[in-house]
Amino acid sequence: MVCSEFSLISHYFNRQSISRDDVKVGIGDDAAVLQLASNEQLVVTTDTLVEGVHFPKNTSPSDIAYKLMAVNLSDLAAMGAQPRWASLALTLPEVDNDWLEQFSAGLFELANEYSVQLIGGDTTRGPLTLSLTLHGVVLSEEFLQRGGAQAGDAIIISGKIGDAGLALQQLLANKEPQAELLARLNRPTPKVELGQSLVGLASAAIDISDGLLADLGHILTASHLGAELQLENLPISDAVKSVVSTGDWSLPLAAGDDYELCFTISETALATLDMQRLALTRVGTIVEVEGIRCLTATGALYTPHGRGYEHFTSIHVEESAS
Amino acid sequence: MVCSEFSLISHYFNRQSISRDDVKVGIGDDAAVLQLASNEQLVVTTDTLVEGVHFPKNTSPSDIAYKLMAVNLSDLAAMGAQPRWASLALTLPEVDNDWLEQFSAGLFELANEYSVQLIGGDTTRGPLTLSLTLHGVVLSEEFLQRGGAQAGDAIIISGKIGDAGLALQQLLANKEPQAELLARLNRPTPKVELGQSLVGLASAAIDISDGLLADLGHILTASHLGAELQLENLPISDAVKSVVSTGDWSLPLAAGDDYELCFTISETALATLDMQRLALTRVGTIVEVEGIRCLTATGALYTPHGRGYEHFTSIHVEESAS
Repeated sequence: MVCSEFSLISHYFNRQSISRDDVKVGIGDDAAVLQLASNEQLVVTTDTLVEGVHFPKNTSPSDIAYKLMAVNLSDLAAMGAQPRWASLALTLPEVDNDWLEQFSAGLFELANEYSVQLIGGDTTRGPLTLSLTLHGVVLSEEFLQRGGAQAGDAIIISGKIGDAGLALQQLLANKEPQAELLARLNRPTPKVELGQSLVGLASAAIDISDGLLADLGHILTASHLGAELQLENLPISDAVKSVVSTGDWSLPLAAGDDYELCFTISETALATLDMQRLALTRVGTIVEVEGIRCLTATGALYTPHGRGYEHFTSIHVEESAS
Repeated sequence: MVCSEFSLISHYFNRQSISRDDVKVGIGDDAAVLQLASNEQLVVTTDTLVEGVHFPKNTSPSDIAYKLMAVNLSDLAAMGAQPRWASLALTLPEVDNDWLEQFSAGLFELANEYSVQLIGGDTTRGPLTLSLTLHGVVLSEEFLQRGGAQAGDAIIISGKIGDAGLALQQLLANKEPQAELLARLNRPTPKVELGQSLVGLASAAIDISDGLLADLGHILTASHLGAELQLENLPISDAVKSVVSTGDWSLPLAAGDDYELCFTISETALATLDMQRLALTRVGTIVEVEGIRCLTATGALYTPHGRGYEHFTSIHVEESAS
């Protein structure tokens, strides 16, 4: 009716192949209406990607959408929540059907995998900015938080870290990263099932989006404790190992965008986890003394160069009032 | 820890004076956790404001924030929902303490009035873009939708329409609007209580953000019906009357940003409404024949020049996937 050009956009987002029974009103009204059960709590997270800040201008629309969904899923994973509904704020410089075709396909590819239904949002004209608000649920009080770590708890990381940062370094140096590394940067795998399985076991959890030191730092700040890390135990790929062999541990310590989980867990609960099957690695221990001490294989103290990751050309602060 | 400049932003948003009991985890974790009762449904809406598109560059930060909250509250009003929680995606070109001070104050001014608590979001660097996702609740199945109008239903509008559009016209012509008109544009009053009181009475409802013809059009499309409007019954201020006296009804018909409610209601239910106390006006009737017919005082057919409002310099599509 008004602004028909932008109205066409709804075409791309009204064709998701899943339709959840708990969506009572979806796309197309003033707001969406969602059903929850009495013993559930709602978990809400928002992440924004800005062109030129979080991704280069030539990034494929499908990869942008996939990552937008992945980073939000990763936040729900870090809460131990089950993903359910997404709301998209899309700011576009112009209506480009080809772009929208690819973007919506990338969004639904990952959304459908987790039965996440797009329930609405807003489309506006402006510099390319994508903001997704993702809603999940937990059974009452059964969620993971950043606070709650105890002295003596083990510090565990899922998967491998540093690969996404290495791919970004290579891109910024105009080198072509290996496909495997590039996939870690553009299409991170959120650890949703792992997060849910850690509820009641982990004492604190966060996803590694800004780098291990920064994100573990959030757990430590919220828990008023410190940590000791064994550098030689960090789970890294051969590609990252070859960088680290120069003596610079910045990639696994401070590069972000891996979207693995970092959590703390008591020795007793740790004994119940199948570390190998879950691809988990113990990297250190929570201690009373605040701050993070990184120790090399010889027990020497290592001083990191940076503490966190600057996304693409600029910065990103997660859930700080954001 | 990382990007301390942006971390400072949390200072401005962590100082809201209300704290809701149903917010189990608020700002500062990977996501927020919210409690709902068993007989409630969640209502979610998102609206984005972009600098240079939805407001001019020199708009006061307090007014931007107030309007951002107001337009989202207006969507919840149009659903008959009770507002509860807000999530803010803030994209800023730079950290300006004075701007943040005023913006957060404007946001909380209206949020506190409706006991809406900010529960999280994301802060990123980029062109000034503000996206708010607002969550409300309704008792199960007790909400208003765009579909549901019946032939013979009365078409009702709250308050007056066209004032915000007139203020914008004057601003774009470099004239200084009257303070009263400017307030209608910059600080619209969402009709939250009215929306809630219409649940079970109105057959369809929408808020007037894009202009009466466009928004009533959404009700008609969703209800597969048409409408007949009596132009002389449109509720307009003296300022808008003086424009309309030239024979051009564009302001009340096609100018947006008034955020009044437009709803349809059966004659029987209409009889139970205190129209004067609620400042409601009947402007027409739902008919079987699709399309909107506008009739003048003499019964002549009036052909509108435009059907919808283009916000500031560009456009805005509400909840179209959206």
